[in-house]
Amino acid sequence: MMDLLNEYRERRADQNKKVIDNADKVIKRIYSLDTITYTEGALDEKTKEIIGLTTSLVLRCDDCVKYHLEKCVELGYSKAQIIEGMGVANVVGGTIVIPHLRRAVEYLEALSQEIEEEK
Amino acid sequence: MMDLLNEYRERRADQNKKVIDNADKVIKRIYSLDTITYTEGALDEKTKEIIGLTTSLVLRCDDCVKYHLEKCVELGYSKAQIIEGMGVANVVGGTIVIPHLRRAVEYLEALSQEIEEEK
Amino acid sequence: MMDLLNEYRERRADQNKKVIDNADKVIKRIYSLDTITYTEGALDEKTKEIIGLTTSLVLRCDDCVKYHLEKCVELGYSKAQIIEGMGVANVVGGTIVIPHLRRAVEYLEALSQEIEEEK
Amino acid sequence: MMDLLNEYRERRADQNKKVIDNADKVIKRIYSLDTITYTEGALDEKTKEIIGLTTSLVLRCDDCVKYHLEKCVELGYSKAQIIEGMGVANVVGGTIVIPHLRRAVEYLEALSQEIEEEK
Amino acid sequence: MMDLLNEYRERRADQNKKVIDNADKVIKRIYSLDTITYTEGALDEKTKEIIGLTTSLVLRCDDCVKYHLEKCVELGYSKAQIIEGMGVANVVGGTIVIPHLRRAVEYLEALSQEIEEEK
Amino acid sequence: MMDLLNEYRERRADQNKKVIDNADKVIKRIYSLDTITYTEGALDEKTKEIIGLTTSLVLRCDDCVKYHLEKCVELGYSKAQIIEGMGVANVVGGTIVIPHLRRAVEYLEALSQEIEEEK
Repeated sequence: MMDLLNEYRERRADQNKKVIDNADKVIKRIYSLDTITYTEGALDEKTKEIIGLTTSLVLRCDDCVKYHLEKCVELGYSKAQIIEGMGVANVVGGTIVIPHLRRAVEYLEALSQEIEEEK
Repeated sequence: MMDLLNEYRERRADQNKKVIDNADKVIKRIYSLDTITYTEGALDEKTKEIIGLTTSLVLRCDDCVKYHLEKCVELGYSKAQIIEGMGVANVVGGTIVIPHLRRAVEYLEALSQEIEEEK
Repeated sequence: MMDLLNEYRERRADQNKKVIDNADKVIKRIYSLDTITYTEGALDEKTKEIIGLTTSLVLRCDDCVKYHLEKCVELGYSKAQIIEGMGVANVVGGTIVIPHLRRAVEYLEALSQEIEEEK
Repeated sequence: MMDLLNEYRERRADQNKKVIDNADKVIKRIYSLDTITYTEGALDEKTKEIIGLTTSLVLRCDDCVKYHLEKCVELGYSKAQIIEGMGVANVVGGTIVIPHLRRAVEYLEALSQEIEEEK
Repeated sequence: MMDLLNEYRERRADQNKKVIDNADKVIKRIYSLDTITYTEGALDEKTKEIIGLTTSLVLRCDDCVKYHLEKCVELGYSKAQIIEGMGVANVVGGTIVIPHLRRAVEYLEALSQEIEEEK
Repeated sequence: MMDLLNEYRERRADQNKKVIDNADKVIKRIYSLDTITYTEGALDEKTKEIIGLTTSLVLRCDDCVKYHLEKCVELGYSKAQIIEGMGVANVVGGTIVIPHLRRAVEYLEALSQEIEEEK
């Protein structure tokens, strides 16, 4: 299960480095905008993060889902809460979302296991 | 501004009646599933409703956005909170979402005005 | 109800004329390809037409749905069959499809009424 | 070629188990709704299954396409019929669908080979 | 035809004002990012603008298409060039794009007529 | 890095062969239409190719992006120009495009390296 986490994290870090090395000012701004988007404001961070997760899921972006799953776990969401949020997204987005839900649950299981092992 | 609200509400009610009159068991189940999806569970109703709103916005469904805007206002979200949630969706979904954001803000303004007038 | 049919048919015819008047060879080929796509082959016309309808519905293109509804009715599909096909599409595409289903059922009702009146 | 089939089937089964173990009532309902959607009604099973296949293809969900390819083959569709149905979806969805068509045809070839070998 | 132009322009201006009046910092940044995106850099403005037009068309956003049509005309693209660019987008996005192409060509015709009358 | 290029090229060629061997007349026409779409007309090949790239990117089709990256490099676009074009697409399509941008930049880097080594 750990391979699943590491593979995603390493590829993401490696590819992100390549993007940043080559980014023009527009791409740099997208990256910085992405960062400020999820900071606390009128809504707290947790609410924003679950919006990030569920909008990624209906748009069926596996990598985005993995990223927001990591953040949601970090911010203290329980597995049941994350599953329920993803259930809402699945109703909105239809059965076409199921393969992405499957991969998301597999990743969430790996994240939960990692936390267990760190204790 | 009230016309905007009434037009949507009346057309939706009128068309929904036609769907229900003609629905097979599958469509009936979708409708009933849609109802139970937003009830409190591990996540509270407010969180689920803003998931409904923001996933609808990234999928660029104006009518779905209007529906969830009504619910979000009903559940006590402030205008600033709704705007901020929609801002997250706009970053995720890109500038292609802007015309839908425009229509959403216009509708939200009409909802706010309606509340003012009811006081 | 007849207004609904006429408005769509007239705008479509009017706009199509403008496209054809201005089309380059690529757009002309798309139009001719679109025509041959729905002719009988290994699959019969009816099966192809319901594929046209349901793929249009999950992609949430109201005008495409109206076009294929007309064809499905012409080819002899019953209202119950069309509704059931759209139900499958709704499950695949999620509740985001519902507003489009509503408009589709409204249009289908108008088509049924037109047939009644022609008898 | 058999690896292609087994890899998909095993990963799907394994991940599905994880989803079911963790599913809330909403996700359970989506799964059960998905099952009843493709049973015979006003339309026969074959028509519903090809709707499942082609809507999955225009929505560009490779895993969904594989699932419905298996079902379409099981229900007796010939390769020529499946190809033709996917051709309609490709016209509707554009050249962006081609990479998904490629993977679909590769999977369909593996399914055909499997049937040959079982004889 | 002029009504088509004015209706879009006025609604857009009116709704944009509402968005800006209510925007949080994230939405403000999206708006300013949108502006700098289309300025000359390694690519000239014309190339960027036709990217804006065609990506909007495959994503089937009528309002975005209208906006970029205005810009493309302003920057000196001929009608034949715009049509050809939209033809590429139509091949990529499939026949589902046709209703949006129809509305785009209608809008482009109105823009051409406006220019004629201003001479 | 070369593995990345070869893996894509070989799988594409292999799968394309399977599609062509099985294609009906509709799929054959899509393939031939795809070819004529990018030839010079009112717009030059370079402009059409970057439209192909950026529409593929907003539609988040990794394989299509790779294909058009190869063509853009062949036609003489500099890395900075391609990055800038993809930046426009990223603004239009939102942060959901980022994982696809990452893979695109990785592929573009491999293409640049290949050219270096060929010198």
